[in-house]
Amino acid sequence: MKVNGTHYRPIWQAKDGEAVEIIDQTKLPHAFETLRLTSMQDAAHAIKAMLVRGAPLIGATAAWGLWLAMREDASDGNLESAYTMLMATRPTAVNLRWALDAGRAKLAPLAPDARVEAAKTFAEQVCDEDAELNHAIGRHGLEIIRAIAAKKSGETVNILTHCNAGWLATVDWGTATSPIYQAHDEGIPVHVWVDETRPRNQGAFLTAWELNNHGVPHTVIVDNAGGHLMQHGKVDMVITGTDRVTANGDVANKIGTYLKALAASDNGVPFYVALPSPTIDWTLDDGMRIEIEERSGEEVTRIPGRLDDGTLASVTITPKGSPAGNPAFDVTPARLVTGLITERGVSAATPAGLLSLFPEHRAAGE
Amino acid sequence: MKVNGTHYRPIWQAKDGEAVEIIDQTKLPHAFETLRLTSMQDAAHAIKAMLVRGAPLIGATAAWGLWLAMREDASDGNLESAYTMLMATRPTAVNLRWALDAGRAKLAPLAPDARVEAAKTFAEQVCDEDAELNHAIGRHGLEIIRAIAAKKSGETVNILTHCNAGWLATVDWGTATSPIYQAHDEGIPVHVWVDETRPRNQGAFLTAWELNNHGVPHTVIVDNAGGHLMQHGKVDMVITGTDRVTANGDVANKIGTYLKALAASDNGVPFYVALPSPTIDWTLDDGMRIEIEERSGEEVTRIPGRLDDGTLASVTITPKGSPAGNPAFDVTPARLVTGLITERGVSAATPAGLLSLFPEHRAAGE
Repeated sequence: MKVNGTHYRPIWQAKDGEAVEIIDQTKLPHAFETLRLTSMQDAAHAIKAMLVRGAPLIGATAAWGLWLAMREDASDGNLESAYTMLMATRPTAVNLRWALDAGRAKLAPLAPDARVEAAKTFAEQVCDEDAELNHAIGRHGLEIIRAIAAKKSGETVNILTHCNAGWLATVDWGTATSPIYQAHDEGIPVHVWVDETRPRNQGAFLTAWELNNHGVPHTVIVDNAGGHLMQHGKVDMVITGTDRVTANGDVANKIGTYLKALAASDNGVPFYVALPSPTIDWTLDDGMRIEIEERSGEEVTRIPGRLDDGTLASVTITPKGSPAGNPAFDVTPARLVTGLITERGVSAATPAGLLSLFPEHRAAGE
Repeated sequence: MKVNGTHYRPIWQAKDGEAVEIIDQTKLPHAFETLRLTSMQDAAHAIKAMLVRGAPLIGATAAWGLWLAMREDASDGNLESAYTMLMATRPTAVNLRWALDAGRAKLAPLAPDARVEAAKTFAEQVCDEDAELNHAIGRHGLEIIRAIAAKKSGETVNILTHCNAGWLATVDWGTATSPIYQAHDEGIPVHVWVDETRPRNQGAFLTAWELNNHGVPHTVIVDNAGGHLMQHGKVDMVITGTDRVTANGDVANKIGTYLKALAASDNGVPFYVALPSPTIDWTLDDGMRIEIEERSGEEVTRIPGRLDDGTLASVTITPKGSPAGNPAFDVTPARLVTGLITERGVSAATPAGLLSLFPEHRAAGE
């Protein structure tokens, strides 16, 4: 999507062909800076330190990480070591596993001297396919927004979203935001309630920045406010992204998603989750079995932002001596999810619903 | 309760008898500073700018505000004007109305030259009665904690609280924290999950500071985390305070309380609200009719804290151009409330439950 009038993706091959470039998302929304990744270690660091984040973009970065690894040393040993190191960066992201498994499967059978070019082709494919997936997700989600807009006969459609499942989290379009961008672009009046999404504030930092750059009307709110807005009819639908959907339709996503799903259910507000199918973990049928990453308490106690003079700084909000807990994700039970918006269409958050769209995942004999 | 080993209340008459002193709660948890209020306007400002906050403390501050007003000019006209100005400071706080109505009723019939002393006696009574109310609330809430502790046979009782309904919000003990302090003081192992409570962070700033000073084990979490913790059995009960309870048991409290109540209900976690009876609004029987204060968006976009060098500063977290919305309270429907802990005992959040404890509020003929 657009930044200062220029189309950007959040990751791309450098013009000189010697590196990968990314937008440093830890600097947003205060500064727009791009960074060169010249080694596999750079790519792993970019994922682990969340310079890039969002399941699809993590997968894309891992794919480019394999290319960077092969450029340095295309041996079997280095392929294996790159696979292991990249896999360890973010345990919850199923796209990471998917990209690395597919990449290794493509590269391992090749002669080492063919691997660099093949890795590049693979990374480009991962990126282009992700952009296309997200565009397709947007087309299906757009139908839902159109239907709500038709019922509201011209009034603004209010959509609440949590965290950033925008184009910055993917390769283009975003997942949760793709229907919103497409609705806005075709002239449907949409307004987005942007949950700030503590502790890392990806909503206030990234989603607001994206929507602002694209000209989509929006209002930033604290994570506490959504329930109240739903009670008062100010939310027509919720769309979030996800880090992992299990085969039964449970949704692992940024901490706090579950609370919004409860409020949506309590107020009859439809709650949708947008996802490209690689996000589905067909090996698990119970979201409560997903291991939830516990991140540093410093993400809770220290908040980065910009001072009045424009410089960036972090402030500590807790008293000295008070510890902090920081579970990064929660799991929204399938019963609270109105529908899953995928690149093939919208399904119920049930095993049958998912399998109707992805019949190739039916177990033998079913 | 204790600060640096000394017992403090959050408001008291200055030793020289010429002013009222308060703890400037906007400086906590970074600095402990007290302030002199020498005029009714000072008291009104302290309430409006939230130097003091919490329904009972607002009532106490208003009562002292009447005393300050009478010291300046004890005429009927000034009594009326002080009443009006103090009433306008925080529309949602029913204790404010209660204290001002009772104070005016006590002072108006008196000769002007008797009003200063009477106003002082009234303010002292408001304070002492609030401290006693909160201690009584704590005794009743303690029974609930004891019962949970007995079931857990020695394991820590985990209690989640939202916002600050601690001694800083009252005159002593706090409301939600009173049972916790009493349980801790009698040796029951308690641990408190402290919601940071965006946008003003009263949990991270005030509740954590209180518990830390009193030595109660606690962990600060983002407002998004509580649902996940409840799903995993890490919360044994929720206790919050309230700004207003309607006669049917609906609970107006800091924005986000409703989301925690939904999560508690979904996970079978008991959800209690602690309140002194002046917080009950017997004139309303539907919480959704409470007008919810919309506060400045700057509370969302700018976060105060301390820099690494110890100085205090605010950081802006949103991009330039993104607006923010800031509803200050939400209403938790009575159906989600396990019980109301009052100074007379614990009641169901129903009209019959409340009237069984407060039969003097039965309508004639009932």
